[in-house]
Amino acid sequence: MRCEVVAIGTELLLGTVVDTNSSWIGEQLALAGIDSLYQVKVGDNFGRMEATIRAALERSDAVICCGGLGPTQDDITRDVIAKVMGVEMRRDETIAAEIRRRFEVRGRTMSANNLRQADIPIGASPIAQMPGTAPGLVCPVGNKVIYAVPGVPREMKEMMLGTVVPDLSRRSGQSSVIRSRTLRTWGLSESGIDEMLTERMAELDKVGNPTIAFNASGIEGIKVRVTAKCDDVETATRILDAEEAKIRAILTDAVFSIDDQSMELTVLNMLQKRGLTVAAAEPYSGGILASRMTAIDTEMATFKGATVSHDVLATGAGGVAGEVRAGNVAASIRELHKADVGLAAIAPGASDAQPPGTVYLGLAIGANKHGERVVLPGNRAMMREYAVINLLNFLRKTLAG
Amino acid sequence: MRCEVVAIGTELLLGTVVDTNSSWIGEQLALAGIDSLYQVKVGDNFGRMEATIRAALERSDAVICCGGLGPTQDDITRDVIAKVMGVEMRRDETIAAEIRRRFEVRGRTMSANNLRQADIPIGASPIAQMPGTAPGLVCPVGNKVIYAVPGVPREMKEMMLGTVVPDLSRRSGQSSVIRSRTLRTWGLSESGIDEMLTERMAELDKVGNPTIAFNASGIEGIKVRVTAKCDDVETATRILDAEEAKIRAILTDAVFSIDDQSMELTVLNMLQKRGLTVAAAEPYSGGILASRMTAIDTEMATFKGATVSHDVLATGAGGVAGEVRAGNVAASIRELHKADVGLAAIAPGASDAQPPGTVYLGLAIGANKHGERVVLPGNRAMMREYAVINLLNFLRKTLAG
Repeated sequence: MRCEVVAIGTELLLGTVVDTNSSWIGEQLALAGIDSLYQVKVGDNFGRMEATIRAALERSDAVICCGGLGPTQDDITRDVIAKVMGVEMRRDETIAAEIRRRFEVRGRTMSANNLRQADIPIGASPIAQMPGTAPGLVCPVGNKVIYAVPGVPREMKEMMLGTVVPDLSRRSGQSSVIRSRTLRTWGLSESGIDEMLTERMAELDKVGNPTIAFNASGIEGIKVRVTAKCDDVETATRILDAEEAKIRAILTDAVFSIDDQSMELTVLNMLQKRGLTVAAAEPYSGGILASRMTAIDTEMATFKGATVSHDVLATGAGGVAGEVRAGNVAASIRELHKADVGLAAIAPGASDAQPPGTVYLGLAIGANKHGERVVLPGNRAMMREYAVINLLNFLRKTLAG
Repeated sequence: MRCEVVAIGTELLLGTVVDTNSSWIGEQLALAGIDSLYQVKVGDNFGRMEATIRAALERSDAVICCGGLGPTQDDITRDVIAKVMGVEMRRDETIAAEIRRRFEVRGRTMSANNLRQADIPIGASPIAQMPGTAPGLVCPVGNKVIYAVPGVPREMKEMMLGTVVPDLSRRSGQSSVIRSRTLRTWGLSESGIDEMLTERMAELDKVGNPTIAFNASGIEGIKVRVTAKCDDVETATRILDAEEAKIRAILTDAVFSIDDQSMELTVLNMLQKRGLTVAAAEPYSGGILASRMTAIDTEMATFKGATVSHDVLATGAGGVAGEVRAGNVAASIRELHKADVGLAAIAPGASDAQPPGTVYLGLAIGANKHGERVVLPGNRAMMREYAVINLLNFLRKTLAG
């Protein structure tokens, strides 16, 4: 069963509005085990919409058209679908009455063009869910089908979950589900992970299920996504559990979490389990670490605080190595904020000639101080972000080790 | 001149990653006066990528392929383009050397598969900008052209602005340009702005050029976008200048900046002009203000520092009104960081019963202290963001007034 998504609207092509609808629909289709091989954006133009829908219908079993169902002149999705179906339009009096009623309920005057939304292709049936004034449509074309849903995300989602996905599942006659799990790593390169997993991927290639894909996500690290296609959720979960264990055994402590769990959440959880509090000196990272930590630990129970300053923090004597200075700053911030653990990211001193992107990371736990030198890629904004995640990873590995 | 965008990556179809690249590219093309009539997402599949690129090349003059240029097995954009061009691949030794150099600089071992990125179709030329390890490509096909840019947004953008858009403009040989200017406001509602500008918009409707549109952008404020389509940049600029002056006269000091100029940049510029430095207490906003300010003022010449803490900062006696306490905290942070201006955002004390979202903003300039109470909408994450922009706007209006 293949289903394409056609997102309709000139504003999508102009970039005024980002098409997040297709992504959400793609995710729902994947979860239902339905393949979505193409997704197209096209403007509010009759000829191009028609060509796009025809091409989609030729190579797929179903097409979801999203947008262009409103009351204005440029909302022509209904008309284009009628052309593709080879039928005329008819006024649906039930829809017309419902549209009139909604305006009455809200005490608003209905302009005549709103009734355009009640004109639907002959043979099409309205979708039962109608959260707005734009009705959705199920439009059979031979043994294939075109769905029309509004571009307003809330309305689209209600119709997708209430009608479109169940209808697609019924048509496909299949009960297979697709589930994914993402293992998140830090400290390895994408190509390094690729090489470490080559053998395992070759094994999986023979079986075809689950599959593995990589995604380099900048400061979110490199993600290893395992996807299983199975008859039921239980089997999919079992396969993902087994594969996660295999990959963890290969990548070991480079894996810091799964799915949506960020590095800062991982570290906060580790600290909390050990009953430790933490504070940070951010003369280099300028408050990024603090804003991340306090976004999760809103009460500041584990993250006790941060200081952003070049002057308030004593960075130690000039002649001392950068790693040692970073450790000293970490120790002093720990004391200032009365925390168990101190973190620091500092730039090299004026007399310390280093390549661009050099940052010293400092970590103080109790009386112990550690320093580490890293060279970070990108521009200044990226370096700040990379400094923060490297600093958190430094703490994570120290706590785990 | 027509240019299509093909976004490549199975993760885009599955909805794991939202394709924001196509939207951004669409916006750049529109600004350059180049039509983009279709944008397609396709997975990492040779046959489907080939079919998509061929179809795009047939109906357009240029195709921008975004993604699939990495070092791993599933990155096959280069190979597919070679097939479409009808040529073999060659190893580009200049690119290979550059990739090796980048790994060396960062002290990391390069795995062999990274050199796949140096294999390019014969006849293609590398794009000069190379912010990552994936080179972009310009691939002539008869009198048409395929561009390949990486899926990493930062890398894609640098190549688009540095090479692809200028090359497209040169090829199109056309002179009509679209230019926009966005006036950014804080403190008015969207419907309020709509009403204030009703008369002016009615006047513009008659002429048709320039046009005005609104965009409510959360913590970025409400944006008023003026768009002019003209034969040349000079005329467009003149029209935009005149319209900006008209709108500023209507909206007065609600306009805090234009285009990409953020509230924090506006405030930093005002402080710098007056020779003032600033520091912030962020027990409520958790470092967000500091991270914003230091992103611009990287040397911390004007922004002297911030402290994120519930304990280190004395918030004053319990019986004092929230506005007074906020002013006191602002004064003490000013002294702690030896700045001319102190800023503070604090939550109501335990005994101070207030509706959810209540935050006290404090401002200290020299010996003067001010406090302000605001009630912010949304969830906790949004409230933190709103607190920061309200605090900066408080300072902006005080400095201007």
